[in-house]
Amino acid sequence: MPDEKRVRVAIIGATAYTSRETIRWLLRHPQAEIVALCSRRDPQPRIDEIFPELAGRLEVRCEPIAPPALKARADVAMLCLPSGVAMEHAPALLAAGLRVIDFSADYRLKERADYRQWYNRTHTDPENLSHAVYGLPEFHRAKIRSASLVANPGCYPASAALGIIPLLKAGLIDPQDVIVDAASGISGAGRRPTPEHHFPERNETFEAYQVGNHRHMVEIERTLDPYVRRGKSSVVFTPHLVPMQRGIFSTIHLKPLQPVSLEHVMQVFADAYQDEPFIRIRPALPRTADVARTNFCDLSARVVKSRIVVLSVIDNMVKGASGQAIQNMNIMFGLEEKAGLA
Amino acid sequence: MPDEKRVRVAIIGATAYTSRETIRWLLRHPQAEIVALCSRRDPQPRIDEIFPELAGRLEVRCEPIAPPALKARADVAMLCLPSGVAMEHAPALLAAGLRVIDFSADYRLKERADYRQWYNRTHTDPENLSHAVYGLPEFHRAKIRSASLVANPGCYPASAALGIIPLLKAGLIDPQDVIVDAASGISGAGRRPTPEHHFPERNETFEAYQVGNHRHMVEIERTLDPYVRRGKSSVVFTPHLVPMQRGIFSTIHLKPLQPVSLEHVMQVFADAYQDEPFIRIRPALPRTADVARTNFCDLSARVVKSRIVVLSVIDNMVKGASGQAIQNMNIMFGLEEKAGLA
Amino acid sequence: MPDEKRVRVAIIGATAYTSRETIRWLLRHPQAEIVALCSRRDPQPRIDEIFPELAGRLEVRCEPIAPPALKARADVAMLCLPSGVAMEHAPALLAAGLRVIDFSADYRLKERADYRQWYNRTHTDPENLSHAVYGLPEFHRAKIRSASLVANPGCYPASAALGIIPLLKAGLIDPQDVIVDAASGISGAGRRPTPEHHFPERNETFEAYQVGNHRHMVEIERTLDPYVRRGKSSVVFTPHLVPMQRGIFSTIHLKPLQPVSLEHVMQVFADAYQDEPFIRIRPALPRTADVARTNFCDLSARVVKSRIVVLSVIDNMVKGASGQAIQNMNIMFGLEEKAGLA
Amino acid sequence: MPDEKRVRVAIIGATAYTSRETIRWLLRHPQAEIVALCSRRDPQPRIDEIFPELAGRLEVRCEPIAPPALKARADVAMLCLPSGVAMEHAPALLAAGLRVIDFSADYRLKERADYRQWYNRTHTDPENLSHAVYGLPEFHRAKIRSASLVANPGCYPASAALGIIPLLKAGLIDPQDVIVDAASGISGAGRRPTPEHHFPERNETFEAYQVGNHRHMVEIERTLDPYVRRGKSSVVFTPHLVPMQRGIFSTIHLKPLQPVSLEHVMQVFADAYQDEPFIRIRPALPRTADVARTNFCDLSARVVKSRIVVLSVIDNMVKGASGQAIQNMNIMFGLEEKAGLA
Repeated sequence: MPDEKRVRVAIIGATAYTSRETIRWLLRHPQAEIVALCSRRDPQPRIDEIFPELAGRLEVRCEPIAPPALKARADVAMLCLPSGVAMEHAPALLAAGLRVIDFSADYRLKERADYRQWYNRTHTDPENLSHAVYGLPEFHRAKIRSASLVANPGCYPASAALGIIPLLKAGLIDPQDVIVDAASGISGAGRRPTPEHHFPERNETFEAYQVGNHRHMVEIERTLDPYVRRGKSSVVFTPHLVPMQRGIFSTIHLKPLQPVSLEHVMQVFADAYQDEPFIRIRPALPRTADVARTNFCDLSARVVKSRIVVLSVIDNMVKGASGQAIQNMNIMFGLEEKAGLA
Repeated sequence: MPDEKRVRVAIIGATAYTSRETIRWLLRHPQAEIVALCSRRDPQPRIDEIFPELAGRLEVRCEPIAPPALKARADVAMLCLPSGVAMEHAPALLAAGLRVIDFSADYRLKERADYRQWYNRTHTDPENLSHAVYGLPEFHRAKIRSASLVANPGCYPASAALGIIPLLKAGLIDPQDVIVDAASGISGAGRRPTPEHHFPERNETFEAYQVGNHRHMVEIERTLDPYVRRGKSSVVFTPHLVPMQRGIFSTIHLKPLQPVSLEHVMQVFADAYQDEPFIRIRPALPRTADVARTNFCDLSARVVKSRIVVLSVIDNMVKGASGQAIQNMNIMFGLEEKAGLA
Repeated sequence: MPDEKRVRVAIIGATAYTSRETIRWLLRHPQAEIVALCSRRDPQPRIDEIFPELAGRLEVRCEPIAPPALKARADVAMLCLPSGVAMEHAPALLAAGLRVIDFSADYRLKERADYRQWYNRTHTDPENLSHAVYGLPEFHRAKIRSASLVANPGCYPASAALGIIPLLKAGLIDPQDVIVDAASGISGAGRRPTPEHHFPERNETFEAYQVGNHRHMVEIERTLDPYVRRGKSSVVFTPHLVPMQRGIFSTIHLKPLQPVSLEHVMQVFADAYQDEPFIRIRPALPRTADVARTNFCDLSARVVKSRIVVLSVIDNMVKGASGQAIQNMNIMFGLEEKAGLA
Repeated sequence: MPDEKRVRVAIIGATAYTSRETIRWLLRHPQAEIVALCSRRDPQPRIDEIFPELAGRLEVRCEPIAPPALKARADVAMLCLPSGVAMEHAPALLAAGLRVIDFSADYRLKERADYRQWYNRTHTDPENLSHAVYGLPEFHRAKIRSASLVANPGCYPASAALGIIPLLKAGLIDPQDVIVDAASGISGAGRRPTPEHHFPERNETFEAYQVGNHRHMVEIERTLDPYVRRGKSSVVFTPHLVPMQRGIFSTIHLKPLQPVSLEHVMQVFADAYQDEPFIRIRPALPRTADVARTNFCDLSARVVKSRIVVLSVIDNMVKGASGQAIQNMNIMFGLEEKAGLA
């Protein structure tokens, strides 16, 4: 493909699971190439030592995060760093002229007070925060196109927002009475071993965690707020852990403002997402397996007594992280939105 | 233990998973013995052919279900038959003088109209239905003691009811706005292979099923109704499947009638269950692993915005089936309630 | 890619797991297209009803297996039918001018006596059997190129043969003392639900099956035999089941004819596979996860006392089935061998 | 049970998985009681903080390891400490008059040279090592009865030895050509989180580890050696990891000295174990699930070409650790051997 445009990608924080997933997708992307893997480690590892599956495919040694050195080689930096660390590195990358897609939460919450409250630290890069675009293409595509800094959405918020916003925009539901029970595979917890995610502690068990105090609760609310006619949204969010690798299943309970039929609900979804390449509206109940290793969000709904129950399913590592980031990259660089995501 | 009373148990429907679990527990019960395993199969299998783990422990051949022949040998029949089949066999067993603990749904719903609506058939044993006792010891212990027929609760209803009734009795919550999202291990689906529970289809996936039309929804409501001051309860119940063997996790969203503190909620639970041998009120969030292979129900709660979120966890095969049945048996026969359930 | 050659593929037996896997890969293959999905079902299903993950991607209705009708539309038929059924359909497909890649065992064993002994039936298509080529590209590439009928290797034999043949060719080991203990994920068992693969029976357990009488034992031997200098090979093959979706791990015990160093063993592998795109020789011990969803075979070895222990790992659905078939297709049609398999 | 003898048990190293398993069994043991839980932690935790499943059952705070203080309270110490640490504590416990059952490897290898070679340290308690008894009751029952110090066998060696010794004693097999491929659940790896056992790294994968250099290889050999007529045994041992909680499956390849029938092999096993309460000889192939949470070892065999293939299955946490220890305790204290192990 000699004449075609190729986006040159630097992955920053290359030893994270989200980096691995991004690498997997980019290795197949016909119009992108990985030009640098940067990490904070010393000494720098070869990436196939960290992820043996990359043997023979990408045997590159990681390098320090040096924005000036990346300037000439890369068009975009994918930041796979933890929240709090990302905002230490984004400013220099942006200053060096790279566009940045940040996987962390650092640029998702516009209100610094929210950030301080939920992340227990002061935001150190308010300037870039002010122009960062929340990377949910289904609702912010135009702004993403021209953004220099995209805040890639959290996995739970992506799944929840896609299942709620159309009904909220249609004025069908009470934004102050939203309940989201979500269940996630364990890859979402990252690569660092912890007692809670030690195999014998995580296998063959199911549990809720951070009930009422998970940081994604406020992110869901802030993502919904622009579509609330009066006041703000109020979401009760309860995440759970499922002993499996991937997938997020959100069971969303919404209060219709007046009686509504399932047909109407499904039509609202169908209309909202008719041109969307990655949203599938399905009559049947979805499974996380149906979207595993794809960038799809599968949506279905039921009306049960006085509630609309929306079922929204994504792969937390794809539409909830790396696939979403590549979709955003495709938009930012004028590529076909599905490029590399088939 | 020569002088002690020993309850003689016949298990009917001996090749079911609930039978296997009941056998496991009874083999260790110091005051009970298995005197017959009855099945509808022809030819009758040896039970260790069906469940190889029983080799060398219970190598008994199953026999037909013949109530008169059981009369002299057994005190109680544990009915591990499917709903619809149980009520074909219970009358003769009761007539033969055995006490009956029924694992099916046949005697759980007092209103025959409910049964017809949710189970799509006419109840054929209204006489015994009228005096059957719902076997939730924490709320019906006295009636269980003298019951000849106990309807062992469904797994989801047991988990949900234990997390809701105390708050309902205390008048703290709106009985018309109850949301139960529950997740179950796969043993609850029974032993018959189906496409949905074929290992490659069930492993590494999470999904909701029978959203808004699961039969346990009405059972939960009917279990709550006696504690509703005016009218009836209304429950939105959504079950999910987790790729693991055992356990039910219920995330219950309740609407306080007025603002309430977590301390108050926990105190209500503590008071309600202070003498209960199998209910553990826990400040920390429970996991299904904490109750696996025990008869415990672990309860915790959080107050999130305008909701009480109750987390109620049981082993679906124990407190949700066989352990519950043995607890009921112990009560019925005057044994120590924890006998055989340590 | 308007000018490029595109191979037109008909998948026969489209509702099998191997078909699903083949579809997944072909949807991404830049030089292949799926032109027909054929099944023996009546009525014919839409493929996304069978595999919901294909919603929005391949919403094609299956059609009957009608070779004349496929003639003008397809270049190659991928036969995902069971052994015994494949040879009923291959002759007509070949007669219609299609090239055929058969996933079943029907054309793998050249000796009809072997087939009769191990598959308990008479081979009904000896003519095509006589010219069928065993599709292990690493050792039969030239013949595959011109073959009209390729017998795609069994998953266990592919994994075992790749780990043994180089050492056999090098004259290092005793062909009469080969022990292969292999462990497989459950997708290998196919889509039909059975008691043994019911989730609660298969989860959280490990077992050997068909010890000494698995049909792949003879296939391994026949694949090794051409490299045996005198007589035939003798393999003791024991397959095991692992509670996971994918992957085959073969632990192969070989008897060196004279003392040998690990370095020498590794060098033999390195030499044998130096130009192979899908074989990775690795110093570290491989995991099935390292090759999951790839067409790689990862090989390592250790010398332990008087044995060479070879560890050979593939994804049973990819290098053990669909990926192998596509690699064969690429060779047959003159495409780049890795096309669509990145 | 007021008049009955009760063995008083102190568990040393109480926060280990083997301690948890021992506690589970002892809580049900009719003639044993847990009198102390000792740990090296500071501050000492309450055991139900470490293992929430113990809430309401054993809410005891751990205490330092102080042998003199245990003297009056305990009859036996179960040492659940790591190898190397156990021999630091055993001497004082023995000196205080307690009998000791050690779960570590410290007293399993009689030759200090073996210990130094395989455990990379000098044995510091040769005196007690000299009289320690290897706790495999099926072959050392008499010595266990009077032992003050029992070395509880390793999980892999227990499984392997039980499947080999009878055939070795019968003179049927070549002791220099033994191959053991074993697969274990992950609980065997202990409670400390590591990168290799982080859930996303361990789930959905299968692998061999420590091929040819696992410490249990020499333990298997030393356990077989007494039954070798001339020279010593030679075992090629390859352990594997299965993504499940519990269970060890050993596939053992033995070389008959002369042709042998399966019937003869099975008869040798039947004779050897006819009075053993925990060995089940089974014609059908065993599964780890059949012995999960039991103290059974299930054995089967096949004759394949010129090999005997023995399949030996235990629960690594029970017959491979805690159940074995309790069986040893029962023998040491004159209790019924199956007491508490039903």
